[in-house]
Amino acid sequence: MPMTDAAIAYARQNQERAVEDLRALIRIPSISMLPEHKADVQLGAEWVAARLTALGVGDVAILPTAGLPVVYGRWTGAGQEAPTLLVYGHYDVQPVDPLELWKSDPFAAEIRGENIYGRGASDMKGQLIAFLTALEAVSQAGASAVNLKFLIEGEEELGSPSLEAFLKENKGRYQCDACLNIDGSILGPEEPEVVYGVRGLAYFEIHVQAADHDLHSGLFGGAVENPAIALSQAIAGMRDASGRVTLPNFYDDVRPLTEPERKEYARLPHGEAWWLEQTGAPALFGEAGYTVNERVLARPTIDVNGFLSGFTGVGSKTVLPSRAMAKVSMRLVPDQTPEKVHRSLEAYLKAAMPATVGWEVKELAHSLPALAARDSKVVQSAVRALETVWGKRPILGRTGGTIPIVAMIQDILHSDSVLVGFGLPDDNLHAPNEKLHLPTFRRGIEAFVHLLTGYAA
Amino acid sequence: MPMTDAAIAYARQNQERAVEDLRALIRIPSISMLPEHKADVQLGAEWVAARLTALGVGDVAILPTAGLPVVYGRWTGAGQEAPTLLVYGHYDVQPVDPLELWKSDPFAAEIRGENIYGRGASDMKGQLIAFLTALEAVSQAGASAVNLKFLIEGEEELGSPSLEAFLKENKGRYQCDACLNIDGSILGPEEPEVVYGVRGLAYFEIHVQAADHDLHSGLFGGAVENPAIALSQAIAGMRDASGRVTLPNFYDDVRPLTEPERKEYARLPHGEAWWLEQTGAPALFGEAGYTVNERVLARPTIDVNGFLSGFTGVGSKTVLPSRAMAKVSMRLVPDQTPEKVHRSLEAYLKAAMPATVGWEVKELAHSLPALAARDSKVVQSAVRALETVWGKRPILGRTGGTIPIVAMIQDILHSDSVLVGFGLPDDNLHAPNEKLHLPTFRRGIEAFVHLLTGYAA
Repeated sequence: MPMTDAAIAYARQNQERAVEDLRALIRIPSISMLPEHKADVQLGAEWVAARLTALGVGDVAILPTAGLPVVYGRWTGAGQEAPTLLVYGHYDVQPVDPLELWKSDPFAAEIRGENIYGRGASDMKGQLIAFLTALEAVSQAGASAVNLKFLIEGEEELGSPSLEAFLKENKGRYQCDACLNIDGSILGPEEPEVVYGVRGLAYFEIHVQAADHDLHSGLFGGAVENPAIALSQAIAGMRDASGRVTLPNFYDDVRPLTEPERKEYARLPHGEAWWLEQTGAPALFGEAGYTVNERVLARPTIDVNGFLSGFTGVGSKTVLPSRAMAKVSMRLVPDQTPEKVHRSLEAYLKAAMPATVGWEVKELAHSLPALAARDSKVVQSAVRALETVWGKRPILGRTGGTIPIVAMIQDILHSDSVLVGFGLPDDNLHAPNEKLHLPTFRRGIEAFVHLLTGYAA
Repeated sequence: MPMTDAAIAYARQNQERAVEDLRALIRIPSISMLPEHKADVQLGAEWVAARLTALGVGDVAILPTAGLPVVYGRWTGAGQEAPTLLVYGHYDVQPVDPLELWKSDPFAAEIRGENIYGRGASDMKGQLIAFLTALEAVSQAGASAVNLKFLIEGEEELGSPSLEAFLKENKGRYQCDACLNIDGSILGPEEPEVVYGVRGLAYFEIHVQAADHDLHSGLFGGAVENPAIALSQAIAGMRDASGRVTLPNFYDDVRPLTEPERKEYARLPHGEAWWLEQTGAPALFGEAGYTVNERVLARPTIDVNGFLSGFTGVGSKTVLPSRAMAKVSMRLVPDQTPEKVHRSLEAYLKAAMPATVGWEVKELAHSLPALAARDSKVVQSAVRALETVWGKRPILGRTGGTIPIVAMIQDILHSDSVLVGFGLPDDNLHAPNEKLHLPTFRRGIEAFVHLLTGYAA
């Protein structure tokens, strides 16, 4: 692989410049949440667009959305026959408060020891610079095996509110073979991971009403239903004591875990002791027959995220409440869909709710689960790239969280995503003293080099 | 009954003066809740004490409590052999806000049509004046068959916070054969009622904790228990769908309804249509085998008065809450006790709560149920008195509410209470434009005359 060697050599020679690039980008306070930083957000987009242009990326454009702009570009350095990878990332960052807890200016990009400190250092300006540095290296060496398109948005820290409409309008422009989502992390400096699946989400609010106004529990208790009890009884029947969801047909579309997957998750460094320590719970909990990692990463769950009824202040107000509300959400795995679990919930409530109350269900949010094929080119290329750099096989894992952009790309562009990034669990994302571990950053550059040169090899 | 006739004649001759007395008492804004009215509250006590003294009541005293004072007095006009009735009432009133909704000054005691308007007119200065007028009449006629002691407190509208300690300290002073609680009402101008029972109360707060801090439902859902679901499942098992409480041994001490009681409650003017209209509920609810009136007045119930967990604002925050709290209360009937249902709840929770959570129960309030013997002298005297005046048999009923003073008198003085008062359901108690219906007030005076002259006849 002389071309890969040349690219790696180039990357190594330019490590210091990569850090300088990162410092320059961190210095732009592109906080999407704060209107007073709108010009900085625009500057962030322009900085990325300029850098892409300098790398020889074509068609670079700062495209408008209903909100903040998206940076687009197309790089065809691998030649007409090569597949195309869509690179997803974002140039916006979280706010910095509480500012007084930062040990250095969040936009000064100060280096202390092995880390560089600053808002966005890990989430995700560091990942972006690592990738662009790798691209420069493979481009110089003529070594890439894959073409690229770029989708670098400015609203990720807001929950990507404009992205779905934007992607639907720009579907043709973004056709690709697969998506490389570089907004990722690994499990530890010596624990490389490639993430190939995310859970979906179906989030509902259930409202129950009995009387049309709050009543005195002495003068009316025994005459009308208590909506908090009716709702408690409904919720009690949605899940058994082991955590298995008992809504009708809930598991119909759940793709079973395969033996290779289970073997893989057994390699995860976090066992039960870690989960107990992280949560402070008196005991772990969940579906029988699955390890805690399997339950969180690859099995559907149901949770009550909020419950409110009646009087919740100090004291003993003897109210018989007229209403009760619960926020109930499910994490989904392929091939479940929010629509089907919504129907399942409605059917359950129709049968379970007594005639003594009125009720309704509102859907507040939904996102599809997604799972890339483990043997797909993008997944296998990422695994090989990290293995080459770390000298050990990365975990091929999933996240229990929901990443709407992954679901959107699957749903709108019909492309699988793999998450490859080099943040660490202690990087203080969204918190004071966010940092990036520079030795891992340098390994990340090389991993991206290998991913690009070794794509689908 | 020439003496009774003379007393009734005296009462009729003095009806106008009784109204003037009531106006004088209403003009004293004895609002116990507002510190700026402390002098008015004292004035209220002094007005009552002076009136008792003028009536020939002995040992009149304004006794201190930890809070506002109690007016005491002892009247022995029925002679040494006669039994002694403790008359309970209060001279304090509720605040008047919102003042702008009053059609006349709440302390001007304006008469419009058949009603006198003012704060305290019905609750309960009108009842107090009716009783004192009746006492004057029977005293003048030498007609009383019963001696009296007075316990007229100044903190009823605060929930009588100082009364239990006061009664315990003054137990000897208040020895009596029975208690006539004149803080009462009837069901309508032509629907007389005597109340001989109240429900008790046991009020708890249940706290459940799983993790020691709120978690992300994507990254932790499936690993730890959801405390809102655990609490919902516990609550769901406390009551069946019909409203029957399923806590262990809960009904062990429940005195069954007797056939005479059930026949009596069947005479109540409010049927299912009235309860539906009052509550606006889609359907009535409650224990099978009992009418709605029986369920509210004479059967125990369980209610959730409040439930709080997690995020209850607008939106879809994906939190896995660490805590859940519910306020759970039971209305009790004889011979249940708050202590026993507390033990019952604890035993249930010990068995029901999973090892995946920690939990605790706190008792916030308790009050014993109380029931006077239907064939007791005080009950039968009250029934005969109202029957004489209204020309129809009053309902011998109960209230589903809890009146701690009735329980205290039962518990500390070992005396039964009967509630006899002449407020009406539309008197706007605790609300703007509180009023008293003067024709019913005049009937009330005569009913009290008959109660005193015909006591235990």
